[in-house]
Amino acid sequence: MADPDRADRATIVLFSGDLDRALAAFNIATAAASMGTKVAIFFTFWGLNVIRRKKPRSMAKGLVRKLLRRMNKGGAGRLKLSRFNMWGIGTWMMKLLMKSSRMAGVDELIRVVKGLGVKFIACTTTMAVMGIAREDLIDEVDDLAGATAYVDEAMDSKLNLFI
Amino acid sequence: MADPDRADRATIVLFSGDLDRALAAFNIATAAASMGTKVAIFFTFWGLNVIRRKKPRSMAKGLVRKLLRRMNKGGAGRLKLSRFNMWGIGTWMMKLLMKSSRMAGVDELIRVVKGLGVKFIACTTTMAVMGIAREDLIDEVDDLAGATAYVDEAMDSKLNLFI
Amino acid sequence: MADPDRADRATIVLFSGDLDRALAAFNIATAAASMGTKVAIFFTFWGLNVIRRKKPRSMAKGLVRKLLRRMNKGGAGRLKLSRFNMWGIGTWMMKLLMKSSRMAGVDELIRVVKGLGVKFIACTTTMAVMGIAREDLIDEVDDLAGATAYVDEAMDSKLNLFI
Repeated sequence: MADPDRADRATIVLFSGDLDRALAAFNIATAAASMGTKVAIFFTFWGLNVIRRKKPRSMAKGLVRKLLRRMNKGGAGRLKLSRFNMWGIGTWMMKLLMKSSRMAGVDELIRVVKGLGVKFIACTTTMAVMGIAREDLIDEVDDLAGATAYVDEAMDSKLNLFI
Repeated sequence: MADPDRADRATIVLFSGDLDRALAAFNIATAAASMGTKVAIFFTFWGLNVIRRKKPRSMAKGLVRKLLRRMNKGGAGRLKLSRFNMWGIGTWMMKLLMKSSRMAGVDELIRVVKGLGVKFIACTTTMAVMGIAREDLIDEVDDLAGATAYVDEAMDSKLNLFI
Repeated sequence: MADPDRADRATIVLFSGDLDRALAAFNIATAAASMGTKVAIFFTFWGLNVIRRKKPRSMAKGLVRKLLRRMNKGGAGRLKLSRFNMWGIGTWMMKLLMKSSRMAGVDELIRVVKGLGVKFIACTTTMAVMGIAREDLIDEVDDLAGATAYVDEAMDSKLNLFI
């Protein structure tokens, strides 16, 4: 290997909270981790919804954050398709098709990638802005960190994606 | 060159089925391939629409897949702008402007990049879920493969983009 | 360092004109540049809106370009959230939350990253199609270039993102 420092590492920024993009991120992470790559997923902005509990445990501070929580609900089961959501019908159809093809859903993919040692890192900057606390996130999250930690990891990785 | 293994290779995941994002992907692929880089484009999810025939040749199995085909039609000529589509008016305007600037459309860019040796790989996982068969894709597609093949190629590439 | 040619360089294609995606791009650029990385941001398609002046200085040529300018207005202050914009209410709420968390807005982030030496490059292809002239862009833009210049820089960079 010509560049051993960067071997076997990959990072994914999951910025999107769309079901389809989350599926793409987790499928790539599963493939990479199965091949022995150390994968870190950085959840930021709407991507935090994927690793938020369905019911938040912290109290929202201030009216604006309370409103934001009403609109922007968390939980892997609540993700919607970026296209053809159509008040949930399209998303429901896609989930049906995934089941009939035995393709894992996001909940199951979270278990799979965690079993393969993929690291989950939540973006502290977005958490502060949106008023999301550590206890609002699922237990599978390994770390809270900012952009510097991300760049540090990415500069040592061969594969870096922004999804 | 310090790292000959990774020299001269690039991958693009085209996840999006938007006209503007497809144009960006093909323009980057054209530039890279013109400079001697081996480029592979992995078409997944809505990105498959870019390499689907206008008329599918396989039979859709099941009601849900039939409905999905109605909504989610394929063909490079059918792509829409991610913004200002406005029932097709914005997309039509953009195509007019592209013509007047002699900027190639997606159909033409497919010919250009194939002429430069760019590889087209269609994602088997999405194909299975959406019920898209090989014969529904254009002849320019070189391979069908899953996420493992993608990661394998990406780990050997200098430039990896998710679009 | 195993690969000195690629050390310390990063590129970001900012394709999106969404407020949230622009914030992500500038936060990553800030972190990378603070760590001594040479960062270049390539603004293309809707991403050009981030570096367009609020009022264009050139004359729009032709009816279609005049219409496009009406719809697709430039200026960092005009960017909207990709989600929950709701006729501006969601974007206004997010800006309130950012202020209360002392998180910099896009205007301020442009000053910060320029102070750290981040290069701003505007895509000539999109400028030609959309009818945007150099004088319509803010002074902070360092260069105008096409996809070849981008690929050239990206092949020498450790971290390449498409946002």
